[in-house]
Amino acid sequence: MSTTGGRVGRPRAQQRRPDSGLTPREELLEAAAELFTTHGYAATTTRAVAERAGMRQATMYHYVAGKEELLAGLLESTVAPSLALAQRLLADDTASAEARLWQLCRSDVELLCGGPHNLGALYLLPEVRTEAFSGFHQVRADLKAAYGRLLAATEGCGALDTDELALRTDLVFGLIEGVILIHRSDPGRPPESFAAATADAALRIAGVATRPAG
Amino acid sequence: MSTTGGRVGRPRAQQRRPDSGLTPREELLEAAAELFTTHGYAATTTRAVAERAGMRQATMYHYVAGKEELLAGLLESTVAPSLALAQRLLADDTASAEARLWQLCRSDVELLCGGPHNLGALYLLPEVRTEAFSGFHQVRADLKAAYGRLLAATEGCGALDTDELALRTDLVFGLIEGVILIHRSDPGRPPESFAAATADAALRIAGVATRPAG
Repeated sequence: MSTTGGRVGRPRAQQRRPDSGLTPREELLEAAAELFTTHGYAATTTRAVAERAGMRQATMYHYVAGKEELLAGLLESTVAPSLALAQRLLADDTASAEARLWQLCRSDVELLCGGPHNLGALYLLPEVRTEAFSGFHQVRADLKAAYGRLLAATEGCGALDTDELALRTDLVFGLIEGVILIHRSDPGRPPESFAAATADAALRIAGVATRPAG
Repeated sequence: MSTTGGRVGRPRAQQRRPDSGLTPREELLEAAAELFTTHGYAATTTRAVAERAGMRQATMYHYVAGKEELLAGLLESTVAPSLALAQRLLADDTASAEARLWQLCRSDVELLCGGPHNLGALYLLPEVRTEAFSGFHQVRADLKAAYGRLLAATEGCGALDTDELALRTDLVFGLIEGVILIHRSDPGRPPESFAAATADAALRIAGVATRPAG
């Protein structure tokens, strides 16, 4: 316990980064990200999250319904930006499918390996199988489907049948999400060059030997 | 609570598969695998593991020191057989490096996706970062190094410098371990054809376009 508590009444929870510019909900998500990835989801109480975010537990419930909502929000933050990018890329037929797939892979890896916490590690929690996380599962499934549509438009995969294309999509998507495990083992690596190399590898799986222009 | 308890004294823990042919330690590992992957590691008590294995908690401590030892044993079971295979393949220069790498990848995927529980999901537990799991981390690092040695012997990677080879090794190893996440989403898929397709994809990352002859 800290001995630097305030002078009035009960010690206040530590005030965290008052100049962070984050909303209270964002502060709670940031605190949850840190605690869930370092102490574990089951071992983290809502009280601990509130204290880490510098607010009382009762105040926390003004902003979020509880721990599940925080976990769902964190999980969705690992897929929603990539899905938004994938939808823009699918709508843009000025670039080749290969170039667009490469760009999606690189951005997705940068998202998964960026930020101070390896949120992808939370994918494998047993709790994430439950209905409370159906929103995350839907966004992740939509993202995977977008990978499949871009793959289907590449020259290397254009002739594959439905089952073969689904398998190829699984492999590319698995390679991209597999960076969660690589990143866990080597969290200090700068994501940029690693992201580009992973995108190259994804295209090799798709049957494209050289990095596409554009 | 079951109402079918015995007649003498306190109800006995449910006797589990008395004809399973497993040793008590194996029964405990099996029970731990089920509970850790479905309820979570932090949420599972040693008492629950003992009961699931059909023994009293005090008896359990004759066979294992506790929950950590069970988790370490489960984690090592996901890498030790692949390391043993990799060492046999490294010593066998009658087959091409490409064919040996392909065989290692296929077997490793079958191991990671085989069995009733997705034990790879346990890799990402925050607890696994601690010293108690250094044995697992060492075997996993040795396995990855063996992938690197086989990759270095392939035609496609023979000319890479040390950094490039390390990156390529990360990508192949990440693809293989990434099947943990794919398997989690689609646990019903038979692993055989998926394992061969993943091995093909690993060789494409290595720069080999066609499946090597046996």
